[in-house]
Amino acid sequence: MRDNLAIVPIMRFALQVEYDGSAFQGWQSQPHGKTVQDHLEQALTVIAGQRTQATAAGRTDTGVHALSQIVHFDTEVERPLQAWVRGVNAHLPAAIAVRWVQAVDDGFHARFCALSRSYRYILFNSPVRPAIQSGRVGWYHRPLDVSAMAEAAKRLLGEQDFSSFRSSQCQAKSPVKHLYQAEVSRQGEYVIFEFRAGGFLHHMVRNIVGALLWVGYGKEKPEWIAEVIAARDRSQAAPTFMPDGLYFTGVEYEARWNLPNGGRIIAPLHSLQP
Amino acid sequence: MRDNLAIVPIMRFALQVEYDGSAFQGWQSQPHGKTVQDHLEQALTVIAGQRTQATAAGRTDTGVHALSQIVHFDTEVERPLQAWVRGVNAHLPAAIAVRWVQAVDDGFHARFCALSRSYRYILFNSPVRPAIQSGRVGWYHRPLDVSAMAEAAKRLLGEQDFSSFRSSQCQAKSPVKHLYQAEVSRQGEYVIFEFRAGGFLHHMVRNIVGALLWVGYGKEKPEWIAEVIAARDRSQAAPTFMPDGLYFTGVEYEARWNLPNGGRIIAPLHSLQP
Repeated sequence: MRDNLAIVPIMRFALQVEYDGSAFQGWQSQPHGKTVQDHLEQALTVIAGQRTQATAAGRTDTGVHALSQIVHFDTEVERPLQAWVRGVNAHLPAAIAVRWVQAVDDGFHARFCALSRSYRYILFNSPVRPAIQSGRVGWYHRPLDVSAMAEAAKRLLGEQDFSSFRSSQCQAKSPVKHLYQAEVSRQGEYVIFEFRAGGFLHHMVRNIVGALLWVGYGKEKPEWIAEVIAARDRSQAAPTFMPDGLYFTGVEYEARWNLPNGGRIIAPLHSLQP
Repeated sequence: MRDNLAIVPIMRFALQVEYDGSAFQGWQSQPHGKTVQDHLEQALTVIAGQRTQATAAGRTDTGVHALSQIVHFDTEVERPLQAWVRGVNAHLPAAIAVRWVQAVDDGFHARFCALSRSYRYILFNSPVRPAIQSGRVGWYHRPLDVSAMAEAAKRLLGEQDFSSFRSSQCQAKSPVKHLYQAEVSRQGEYVIFEFRAGGFLHHMVRNIVGALLWVGYGKEKPEWIAEVIAARDRSQAAPTFMPDGLYFTGVEYEARWNLPNGGRIIAPLHSLQP
């Protein structure tokens, strides 16, 4: 009898993690270890007592935050669910926190099962730069015509070739993406952008925000966005806007995975700020 | 003729400054220079081209934020008002920003003319600690009975001896203060405390919040607060709560100083958070 040949059942878990991206070099693991994935895997590994890997729905860039990043991991060890939340959080930096963990069917994959992903951009629109919200909001000093921006954003909807909003480092196979939501609204001194798509190209949201700002301060008309899309040429659009105000807000999955909120795990805009 | 004997008119200015206190060792100047006052005076000195000192309405502790700190400074030099805002901000760390500057009568004094000061405490009340708001909100993990806390807070109103909520390092001449406002309310996962008084003792708000938490989770009844006040004994109250969620929200001055909003320069609770 060789005990170590026994089949050890592997359990798959899904978790929601929130992070302030300004403290990390993006999601994806790097040799220097200063990424969110590196910190999360280290903390999971401590709790599991064995090397544990984490797979995320969306790989955010340096400086980009997540309110509702969805991750899955596999483990052979049994722990109370609270150990995967509070135990893991005790081993994470203050700017990262796991909000919940639950067991999932082993067919679930945080990235490949995602039906859509959502991003929010929060822009502080004031003559004076932010201080307390520094690093967590974008900033634009000139007055913005938000209704023109909202009108322009509608031109982005549907399945289109987004080459004009794609970074030269983008590794996606195709520049064609389907945008389901592209909304711009004002809340006092803030302008809020909400986007939802099957997937996003590299820097796509920041490039879109940059272009919508050109419409907002009157450099271009809303119709210009359609011309930029038609050009399929990055040089026709505006510069990439700062990452500070960009939040990965969540993911939509099929209901059969029994995830919270029927699988539509998208963080709402909270109603509070100091 | 000796030109340097000419009388140079001195102008006094008031300004509003916002800061994230987690990056600094409080307001008041220290030899190490890592305080908000040191940074602000250095930036004003650069713009003025001469040593410029700043006097604040309230001296906040390490880790305590300000949404509306009011400051005055004197200068002999003439600059456009925008230089005192944008120019100074260009020489300040990202976590500090001057929001406005205006000329004031030279009888105005940011500290001695203040009729009342206001503080807000923002508490994240969730089983799981904050991440994106880390350092900018307090955190308490157990469910809180906010109506019991609001009831308890009413016992703090009026002119009373607050020795039970006074730190041993407090340098105030008297422990008697007049509290005009002491409110506790819930907004979703947040509990908001609002206080206004002629002045506050050292650590007074954090000590009051600590005591109200004991009422909130059921360790004490609301009436207990009156007993604590009557005891005039710091050891009868709860421990000092963390500074993370504490905001200096503003100051009230007489209308004759012609400051914004009739002199009641108190930052409202904004309606937005990622």
